[in-house]
Amino acid sequence: MKKQKFAHESLVTTTEMVLPNDTNPLNNLMGGRLMHLMDVVAAISAQKHSNRIVVTASVDNVSFQHPIALGDVVYLEAKVTRAFNSSMEVHIRVSSENVPSATTSQTNEAFFTFVAVDQSGNPIGVPELVPETKDEIELYEGALRRRQLRLVLGKRMKPEDATELKSIFFDTQK
Amino acid sequence: MKKQKFAHESLVTTTEMVLPNDTNPLNNLMGGRLMHLMDVVAAISAQKHSNRIVVTASVDNVSFQHPIALGDVVYLEAKVTRAFNSSMEVHIRVSSENVPSATTSQTNEAFFTFVAVDQSGNPIGVPELVPETKDEIELYEGALRRRQLRLVLGKRMKPEDATELKSIFFDTQK
Amino acid sequence: MKKQKFAHESLVTTTEMVLPNDTNPLNNLMGGRLMHLMDVVAAISAQKHSNRIVVTASVDNVSFQHPIALGDVVYLEAKVTRAFNSSMEVHIRVSSENVPSATTSQTNEAFFTFVAVDQSGNPIGVPELVPETKDEIELYEGALRRRQLRLVLGKRMKPEDATELKSIFFDTQK
Amino acid sequence: MKKQKFAHESLVTTTEMVLPNDTNPLNNLMGGRLMHLMDVVAAISAQKHSNRIVVTASVDNVSFQHPIALGDVVYLEAKVTRAFNSSMEVHIRVSSENVPSATTSQTNEAFFTFVAVDQSGNPIGVPELVPETKDEIELYEGALRRRQLRLVLGKRMKPEDATELKSIFFDTQK
Amino acid sequence: MKKQKFAHESLVTTTEMVLPNDTNPLNNLMGGRLMHLMDVVAAISAQKHSNRIVVTASVDNVSFQHPIALGDVVYLEAKVTRAFNSSMEVHIRVSSENVPSATTSQTNEAFFTFVAVDQSGNPIGVPELVPETKDEIELYEGALRRRQLRLVLGKRMKPEDATELKSIFFDTQK
Amino acid sequence: MKKQKFAHESLVTTTEMVLPNDTNPLNNLMGGRLMHLMDVVAAISAQKHSNRIVVTASVDNVSFQHPIALGDVVYLEAKVTRAFNSSMEVHIRVSSENVPSATTSQTNEAFFTFVAVDQSGNPIGVPELVPETKDEIELYEGALRRRQLRLVLGKRMKPEDATELKSIFFDTQK
Repeated sequence: MKKQKFAHESLVTTTEMVLPNDTNPLNNLMGGRLMHLMDVVAAISAQKHSNRIVVTASVDNVSFQHPIALGDVVYLEAKVTRAFNSSMEVHIRVSSENVPSATTSQTNEAFFTFVAVDQSGNPIGVPELVPETKDEIELYEGALRRRQLRLVLGKRMKPEDATELKSIFFDTQK
Repeated sequence: MKKQKFAHESLVTTTEMVLPNDTNPLNNLMGGRLMHLMDVVAAISAQKHSNRIVVTASVDNVSFQHPIALGDVVYLEAKVTRAFNSSMEVHIRVSSENVPSATTSQTNEAFFTFVAVDQSGNPIGVPELVPETKDEIELYEGALRRRQLRLVLGKRMKPEDATELKSIFFDTQK
Repeated sequence: MKKQKFAHESLVTTTEMVLPNDTNPLNNLMGGRLMHLMDVVAAISAQKHSNRIVVTASVDNVSFQHPIALGDVVYLEAKVTRAFNSSMEVHIRVSSENVPSATTSQTNEAFFTFVAVDQSGNPIGVPELVPETKDEIELYEGALRRRQLRLVLGKRMKPEDATELKSIFFDTQK
Repeated sequence: MKKQKFAHESLVTTTEMVLPNDTNPLNNLMGGRLMHLMDVVAAISAQKHSNRIVVTASVDNVSFQHPIALGDVVYLEAKVTRAFNSSMEVHIRVSSENVPSATTSQTNEAFFTFVAVDQSGNPIGVPELVPETKDEIELYEGALRRRQLRLVLGKRMKPEDATELKSIFFDTQK
Repeated sequence: MKKQKFAHESLVTTTEMVLPNDTNPLNNLMGGRLMHLMDVVAAISAQKHSNRIVVTASVDNVSFQHPIALGDVVYLEAKVTRAFNSSMEVHIRVSSENVPSATTSQTNEAFFTFVAVDQSGNPIGVPELVPETKDEIELYEGALRRRQLRLVLGKRMKPEDATELKSIFFDTQK
Repeated sequence: MKKQKFAHESLVTTTEMVLPNDTNPLNNLMGGRLMHLMDVVAAISAQKHSNRIVVTASVDNVSFQHPIALGDVVYLEAKVTRAFNSSMEVHIRVSSENVPSATTSQTNEAFFTFVAVDQSGNPIGVPELVPETKDEIELYEGALRRRQLRLVLGKRMKPEDATELKSIFFDTQK
C-alpha cells in the first residue's frame, strides 16, 4: 500500500439533474435527497484515497441556504481533507445551475467522515493525506479542530481537552 | 391558526425494511440513504406541527455507530422539540432490528431544522411548541444551545455572544 | 422458540409521503403502490410475530374508497390477528392526512396472509397468537371465517363445509 | 363515444424481469411488488376500454402459489371482463419463466375493478363490453357474481339479496 | 440444446406507462429511459432464444421521432432476427398511445446485439434462428449487412471487405 | 443569445456507483442502464451549450466491450462536438474503475444528438460551437460525416449524396 497520497488524487465530481421524485411540494430538491447524493460522492472520494470499502462514520452540521428547483443541475465535488489511521474526512462542495437562465448558485458545503474497513467490516489503516494547494492545506489544518468538535458533540472527548477546538470560539481568524 | 401545540402532536413513527439498493458492498445500509429517511420522517413531523409545507434548513452533526444490515428493519421516530418564529427543530431517534434473531440496536439520533413556508416559498410563522414530559422539556431547553452552535458554525453568530452554548463546554451536567 | 406471543408484540406502524412517481394522472396515489406499502408493513408484522422470513400467501378483497393525493401523508398500521401452524393473518389499517388542512381520512383496511419459511423456503411453525383487547379478540375470532372464505374462493374447500363462513351470509350481527 | 367495445380490444400484455429490489431475503419476488405490476397492467386495460383516466376501486382475493425468483421473467395479461356504468372488472393472468431452464409456471390470477373518471375525478360512463370467445363469455357471466361478493364483503349489499352469489355456495359447476 | 429455433419463439412484448420520473421538463419520456426499456425487452428476447444469460454487445443507430408524453402508454415488441455463433441480433419496435384520445404513434425501431454467456461470463454457442414470415426473412437477410456496418464502425473490419454493406450504398431497392 | 460558444463550456463530468438494481444476473451493469446514464450527462452538456431544454434526437452505434461490475465506479464525460442550426452532436466517453484494485478501464464512447426546443417543443436555434484543442477539432470535423451516416441510415439522405460519408469507406486514415 502506498504510504502517502495527494489530496487531488481523491477528487471526485458528479453532476445530477433534479427529477420529480427528488422534490417537495414546492418542486424543490429535498434536503435528504441532497444528503444522499453528498454521501455517495464523498464515499467514492474516500474509496479512491484508501482503495478500500468505506462506511460513513459521521456527518457534520450541514445547512441548506438556496432552494434547488426541479430540472436544475446539481454539481457535487468531493476531496479528502485529512486521514487519521483508518478514518478520512471528506469535504463536499455543492453548487447548482438553472441552465436556461445560466444562473449558478453556491449551494452548500459539508464535511463527512468515513472509516475504511476490510471484508469483515473491521477498520483498517489508510495512507496519509498530503495537501498541496493553499485551499487543501487550510482544510487539512482545520480537520483537527472539526474532529475535536465531533468528539465533544459525541461525548467522547471532554470539552476542556479540546485544545484545538477553542480556536473556533476564541480565535478571531476563521 | 392554533397559537400553541403540544410536542406529542408532532410525533411521527415509521418503519422501513433495508432493500438491496440501499446497501453498500458490505450489505449494510448506506449512511446517505438513512439520512434521506430521517429527513422525510422529520419533515412530516414539522408539517404536522405547522400545517405548512416545510423545507430542510439544517442538519446537526450525525454519527453512525452500528451498521444496519440488508433485510433489517429500521424504526424512525421524530418529534418537534421547539419552535422559533418560522423554524422548528425536530429530534429523530433511529433504531434497527434483526428480526430473525430479535436483536434491536439503538442506532443513532439527530436534530434537523425546518422552516415553514407559504406557497411562494417565503417563511411563515408557526405555533409555539409546548413540551410536557421530562424528556420533551429537556429537549426543549437544549434547543437554544444547539441553535447557537448552528449559528456559530454557520458564521452567523459570534462565539462570544453564544451565551447558552458555553454550557456545552463549561457545564459538568448533561 | 416462544410458544405464544401477544397480538400487540406484532404491531408495526409506518408513515409515508406520496411522491410524484406514486401517482396517476389525477395526482392520486395508485392502488398498486398502496398495496405494495401494505404488503411491506404487513410482512414486517408477520416477521415480528414469527422471527422468521415470511412470504405473502394471499390478500383478501381490498377496496379503495378515498383518493390519497400527491403530498399527502399515509399512515399504515399492521398487527397479526391469528396464527395457524405456519401461517399468520395480518390486519392492516390505512389512513391518510392532508397536512396543510389537517384533514384525516380513514382510507381502507385489508387482511394479508403470510407463511413463515426456513432458509430453504419450506413452511415452519410459528407461535400461537394471544389476543387481549376487545378489538384483537374480535379480529381473532373472525379469522376462521375469513380463512374459510379464502379456501372456498381458492377452490380448496367445498362451500358446504365452510361452517364458519355461513355466518357472513346468515348472521345479522357484524 | 363508441357504445360497445369488444373484450379483445382491451387486451394488454407485459413482461418484466425480477430485479434485486423487488425481492425478499429468499430472493423471491415480493407479493406487494407483484400486485403493483398487476395494478398497472390492469389499469392500462381499463383505460383502453374506456379511453378515460381510471382509478382502482377494488382488488379481489389474490393468492400466491409459486415463488418467482430473482432474474425470472414475469408475464402479465389483462383484459376487461365486463363493464357496469362507470366501472370495469379486469381479469389478470400472471405466469413466470425461469429462462435458463425454460420452465414456465402459471403463477396466479386476479380480478381488479376500476372506475373511469373525468378530469375532476367524477365517475363517467364507459362503453358496454361485448365478450366473444367462450373464455370471455364465462368471465363476463361470472362478473355479476363476483360483484355481489364485493358488495357483501364491503357491507354495501345484504347477503340475502346476493342472488347471483349463492351460486358460488350452492352451484356444483364452477 | 435445441439446434434450431423459430424467430417467433423469441417474441416478447411489453407495455409501460410513462411516469413522472421518466420525463424531461417538457413532460416527455427521456430518450435514455426509452433505451433502458428497449434493452430490457430485447435482453429477454435473446434469453428466450438462447436459454442463457445474455449481455448487451452493441446498439445500432436509434432515432427518436415522436415525443411520448407523461401518462402515455409505450408498447415494445422484440424478436431475434438472426443468430451468429454466440451472438444474436434483436429487432425492437416501439409504439406509443395516448389513451384518452386513442391516438397511436409508431415511435421508433432499433437493433440491439447480445452475446450469450455462461456463468463465468464466457461466450457460449446459441441455436440457429429460423425465420418463417416474409418480415422475419427480410430482417434475417439484412442482419449480415448491419453486422458488417457494426464491424466497420467499430474498426474491426476494413470497409473494402464489407461486401454486404455496399448494398446500403449502391442498392436502389430497400 | 451568445452567437458562439467554446466546446469546453459544455463539458460535463459525472461519477456513479453501480448499485444492485443496475445489474444483470452476472452482477454486471446492464447496457440499457448505462445508455440511460449517457443520455442524462449528454443532455446536460447540450443544455449548457444551448441554455435550452433539449430532447434526444438520435444515438449512434454504441458497443459495450468491458463488463462493469457491481460496486464499480463509472465516470462519464460529455462535450458538444458541433452545432447545426437547432441540433447538437455530443460525444460521451465512459470509463470505469474497480476502486479496491485501482484498475481503470476505458469502457466505451458514443455520439448522441439533441435538438434544442422552446417551451412548446418547437426546434430553436443554438450558438455555433467553436472547437479549440486538436481533439475538439477532430471531433468537429468528423461530425459532418457522422451526420450523413445518420441521415442515410434514417433513409433521409441518398447514399450517393453522402459525399463526406464516403471517407469512412474509401479513406485510409481514420
